[in-house]
Amino acid sequence: MSVQKLVECIRQKNNPTVAGLDARLEYIPSFIVSQCVERYGETLEAAAAAMQQFNISLIDALHDIVPAIKPQAAYYELLGPKGAEVLKNTIDYAHEKGMYVIADIKRNDIGATASAYAEAYLGCTKVGDKELPVYNADSCTVNAYLGTDGIEPFLKECRAREKAIYILVKTSNPSSGEFQNRDMEGKPLFVRVAEQFAKWGEGLDTPSGYNQVGAVVGATYPEEQKIIRSIIPKAYFLVPGYGAQGATAKDIANAFNDDGLGAIVNSSRGIMCAWKKTGKDGADFMEAARAEAIRMRDDIVSAIR
Amino acid sequence: MSVQKLVECIRQKNNPTVAGLDARLEYIPSFIVSQCVERYGETLEAAAAAMQQFNISLIDALHDIVPAIKPQAAYYELLGPKGAEVLKNTIDYAHEKGMYVIADIKRNDIGATASAYAEAYLGCTKVGDKELPVYNADSCTVNAYLGTDGIEPFLKECRAREKAIYILVKTSNPSSGEFQNRDMEGKPLFVRVAEQFAKWGEGLDTPSGYNQVGAVVGATYPEEQKIIRSIIPKAYFLVPGYGAQGATAKDIANAFNDDGLGAIVNSSRGIMCAWKKTGKDGADFMEAARAEAIRMRDDIVSAIR
Repeated sequence: MSVQKLVECIRQKNNPTVAGLDARLEYIPSFIVSQCVERYGETLEAAAAAMQQFNISLIDALHDIVPAIKPQAAYYELLGPKGAEVLKNTIDYAHEKGMYVIADIKRNDIGATASAYAEAYLGCTKVGDKELPVYNADSCTVNAYLGTDGIEPFLKECRAREKAIYILVKTSNPSSGEFQNRDMEGKPLFVRVAEQFAKWGEGLDTPSGYNQVGAVVGATYPEEQKIIRSIIPKAYFLVPGYGAQGATAKDIANAFNDDGLGAIVNSSRGIMCAWKKTGKDGADFMEAARAEAIRMRDDIVSAIR
Repeated sequence: MSVQKLVECIRQKNNPTVAGLDARLEYIPSFIVSQCVERYGETLEAAAAAMQQFNISLIDALHDIVPAIKPQAAYYELLGPKGAEVLKNTIDYAHEKGMYVIADIKRNDIGATASAYAEAYLGCTKVGDKELPVYNADSCTVNAYLGTDGIEPFLKECRAREKAIYILVKTSNPSSGEFQNRDMEGKPLFVRVAEQFAKWGEGLDTPSGYNQVGAVVGATYPEEQKIIRSIIPKAYFLVPGYGAQGATAKDIANAFNDDGLGAIVNSSRGIMCAWKKTGKDGADFMEAARAEAIRMRDDIVSAIR
């Protein structure tokens, strides 16, 4: 089972963190970008080739210590169809290296369309008699503004293929309170979203004690984390906002349960751009990413003990 | 300007409708699918080739009478990287034929990531000294759950490149009321979202009288349409839910202003699957789509007179 698998990966590596692979060109060392531009010109193809090489190298540098990657779809879409290939190849390569994959897509739509998204990222496309996996992630993020019938197709994949989802509850950005924290019939909207998890997660508990329906809860809002944790103790939290967005290990402690589980903390720019702080123009980008991933792991593990 | 251009296209064709190009394989006549499977086997490539051929033919059949297309990203993502190519080619072909393009992506994320989405669908990717358009739609749909800093990067493209966006206010699906209609400090959430349009649309009015910041308002909820129209009279409404989802022309009359403008009504399955009702196994799919588009145009134009 997918959350089960995530918990096993986290335990095995004693590391409740995920590396966000959200590469913009400016996050990639210039020697990689230059090689690709030399080969393909100043094109989207060159940008995609650079991103592919960067991602593969980061997975090589991290896979034995970091349990999961979280590719953010936006950065792949920014490179057009070639970027879509990089996304697919990155997911496949992470799987080869034994990593768990969270596709950060934040999709949402009416039922018929949500089915297409759920099949694209978690399920299969049927062509003739064949069922073909498409992006084949282990889990993905989902926005709940459309209510249950936009969530149900994702739950169907969770049930049929042991996948998991993370529903946006409280996001990490500064303006997240604009709607999420306003009072809805006596409680903030983000609490109203969390209250639906009992229904959405029905029948999706795993032996790990955690449910296949998880929650996105920003590291930048420790008080909200505590409230959400009390409403949905069995939901796995995907926690963005550590590092570049300003949250510290102390800020994320509330996201975890007493078993030291229940949350996985993301760092994207912190890990990808670690090479910018060593003064070596990116020659050591793999070592720098690995060193930052270890530092982050130790920082978080010590805060939740 | 992009909403300006939309209004001009609608006036010119006297047709306030948009053709949703959301092809699943089962919506494509089997003679097209069979040809592609013969050539490429039972693969995603075959499915993408069939979708490409279907879309091109539909645009050929509709472009002189229908002002706009609305490709729904999910169905393209369902075919993987090849599907991303079909999306790009479909948008380019629609532009060649003078049609306005609404990319139905319903994206949402924190500011840095929302920028990547906005650039991917409305703007450009910078590679070296070159600014390269990616999907290059005229407008796209956006989910506002993350608040203003997830919207702002899209507004930036609206300002810089005369693009438009449609923000989800009240969606057409049965469970949309689960959150959208619940009371938030005295008014339903969908009203609270609509109330932010004054801020989001600042400086984005066009000579047409309409603002570059539009709203998604489901045809299936005529009462909500009326309420939203009264709050944001200058927002263009993208109205899904006509036809297959059950709404009639009468149901969408409230979405329009007295000038006969202010809304564009989508039909996807109604147009794409019109061939299923003629008993000719899809041989007449172009004529059937055109006939349905004309019927829909006349139905709606007569209802809003």
